[in-house]
Amino acid sequence: MNNFEFKNPTKIIFGKDTIKKINEEIPADAKVLLLYGGGSIKKNGIYNQVKEALANIDVIEFGGIPANPEYATLLEALEVIKTKNITYLLAVGGGSVIDGTKFLSAAAVYEGKTPWDILQKNIRTEKGMLFGTVLTLPATGSEMNSGAVITRKETKEKLAMGGPGLFPQFSILDPEVVKSIPQRQLANGLADAFTHVLEQYMTYSVDAKLQDRFAESILQTLIEIAPTILNDEFDYKAASNFMWSCTMALNGLIQKGVPTDWAIHAIGHELTALYGIDHARTLAIITESHYKHNFETKKDKLAQYGERVWNITEGNVDDKAQAAIKKTTAFFKSLGIDTKLSDYTSDYEGTAKEIAKRFTDRGWLALGEHQSLSPEKVEKIVEMAY
Amino acid sequence: MNNFEFKNPTKIIFGKDTIKKINEEIPADAKVLLLYGGGSIKKNGIYNQVKEALANIDVIEFGGIPANPEYATLLEALEVIKTKNITYLLAVGGGSVIDGTKFLSAAAVYEGKTPWDILQKNIRTEKGMLFGTVLTLPATGSEMNSGAVITRKETKEKLAMGGPGLFPQFSILDPEVVKSIPQRQLANGLADAFTHVLEQYMTYSVDAKLQDRFAESILQTLIEIAPTILNDEFDYKAASNFMWSCTMALNGLIQKGVPTDWAIHAIGHELTALYGIDHARTLAIITESHYKHNFETKKDKLAQYGERVWNITEGNVDDKAQAAIKKTTAFFKSLGIDTKLSDYTSDYEGTAKEIAKRFTDRGWLALGEHQSLSPEKVEKIVEMAY
Repeated sequence: MNNFEFKNPTKIIFGKDTIKKINEEIPADAKVLLLYGGGSIKKNGIYNQVKEALANIDVIEFGGIPANPEYATLLEALEVIKTKNITYLLAVGGGSVIDGTKFLSAAAVYEGKTPWDILQKNIRTEKGMLFGTVLTLPATGSEMNSGAVITRKETKEKLAMGGPGLFPQFSILDPEVVKSIPQRQLANGLADAFTHVLEQYMTYSVDAKLQDRFAESILQTLIEIAPTILNDEFDYKAASNFMWSCTMALNGLIQKGVPTDWAIHAIGHELTALYGIDHARTLAIITESHYKHNFETKKDKLAQYGERVWNITEGNVDDKAQAAIKKTTAFFKSLGIDTKLSDYTSDYEGTAKEIAKRFTDRGWLALGEHQSLSPEKVEKIVEMAY
Repeated sequence: MNNFEFKNPTKIIFGKDTIKKINEEIPADAKVLLLYGGGSIKKNGIYNQVKEALANIDVIEFGGIPANPEYATLLEALEVIKTKNITYLLAVGGGSVIDGTKFLSAAAVYEGKTPWDILQKNIRTEKGMLFGTVLTLPATGSEMNSGAVITRKETKEKLAMGGPGLFPQFSILDPEVVKSIPQRQLANGLADAFTHVLEQYMTYSVDAKLQDRFAESILQTLIEIAPTILNDEFDYKAASNFMWSCTMALNGLIQKGVPTDWAIHAIGHELTALYGIDHARTLAIITESHYKHNFETKKDKLAQYGERVWNITEGNVDDKAQAAIKKTTAFFKSLGIDTKLSDYTSDYEGTAKEIAKRFTDRGWLALGEHQSLSPEKVEKIVEMAY
């Protein structure tokens, strides 16, 4: 096991009818900016629950934060924070709204002139403006971590930020919200959380037995509940397991003491940038070819995953590892998610070269857990995913 | 899954050569009281490492905190805190030293006249004096939770305390410390952590799939590493897994959203009080008869545990559950831990009645996850453990 440090101070409030607890968490004298996305919370009743809980608190609203939270929109919110003397932020939404709120938490206290520097210069936030979240879409884990990804359309950039000051003070996870999520987004959430775990697990063994088993536990749970989640009939128990699994998949715990990969995400982000493919689906496109291309360095872990998660018992390590890759692809397909780039666009020729070039231009010359994935190898992986 | 709240702000610093990091965690202007136990840290080199890390910090020492931390001793330490204007506490030890330090953290800021009230009246500490820990004995999980158990000899009381203000600010977990731990204490640590998990798991299903699998992960890891831990030759990898498993077994995570039992601990504490049997060994004495006596309400979970943790495939639910109990007893024995009261004392007649009476006198009329374990049932369980 590698040395590690772990601290996660976010308070999770989990369960039925918990949205009303917001008012116990936000100071009574706070001036709150309530942030949300495209307005689905007004249709599904969550907005009303939140407003009711905030009845005795001074609140201003800012809606319209888009998927892949956009810098220009966030600057408008930042203006509101400054002119209206906001002291506390409340994100009601999925990963995009929460990530956008983290940027605002950092930018609100940032003393430099250009908030974009927080992303461009990778400035860690030690103490941001306090914020809480009400999660409406299980997937990204942003509700219990301190990272965010922000997009800037004008420069076609998508950059990450973070710091110990960007953990939510509290996050409310009411599985009832799953009821109104469209099936496409449910499938995306399942695939996203599944791949988050894979990125922190499918590397090489450092004999971190408990981390391995925790990662396998999340994968097993997601596999077990997926059919029920995608069923038309809402199931509270399955929704609870879905929600908690997504949070645990990326709250820092399972990555501690082990090598991590994250190449699938790095490549996948480019497919979103080039073709606008849903983030989770880009991961499903890249996973198989990434594992096939890096088979020799990942096969021991792939075989362990095959044995423990998919109950594969036949064959040697190579056989089990190959079978495990097949099972993974089949899992994505069972969610209704296609796994080849050509399933999404006919204009895929040249994509591999384009992405490899972007990586080279950016100086990304060594991705993956061994820091051995060159742009040439990335090109090959993307080609294999056509 | 039941509703739950979860917040654990302790910073874990895990790995080789991490003791020197103390000085990055304690404010430079702090006046520190360094607390430890019987002095074994002076023999194994940990004391020197700690002192070196504290070279530039103002430190006063207080050694001699006994196993089952004793109120009278702690009052002496409290006197030092007050007269020497201590501002920060540092526990270097196992669960007893850390628990004692938690009491001091609470008592140092307590405004009432009698610190015992914190225990007697179960006063929760919202904000205690800040403290950190250097763990020298993996077992109790106290390094990453906010609870403590304090003993008062003069009144033969052993009472629990806690509160959100009693999480350590940081805990340093260097697996190298396992090297110098006597085998008896290693066995106790393994049994203690194992039973901590059982108490939070072996109840009835609320379909909390991830919590179940996390609990099973810890059990599987402890089983897998136990022989290596008890081997004379020190193994850093096994020690790492041992240490992290003990912490995760009782840092609050696996109990969230599920019913918990804790009757084994409640009964076991009495055996320590009556016969001075090591805490972990009292748990091993009670477990089998507790599960046999409550077989009907626990058998589904026992069977699941049998299947997933012990790979029991034969028979129906009853068969698997029975086999799982046998495997548990065999596991304790594999640690060199006897599982019958008569293995520890010939003077056991009347123990069951005595313990039942103590429970009745204390008003403990309904233990266990169903709150259905009456003193009469406790009497039966203890008898079965003779």
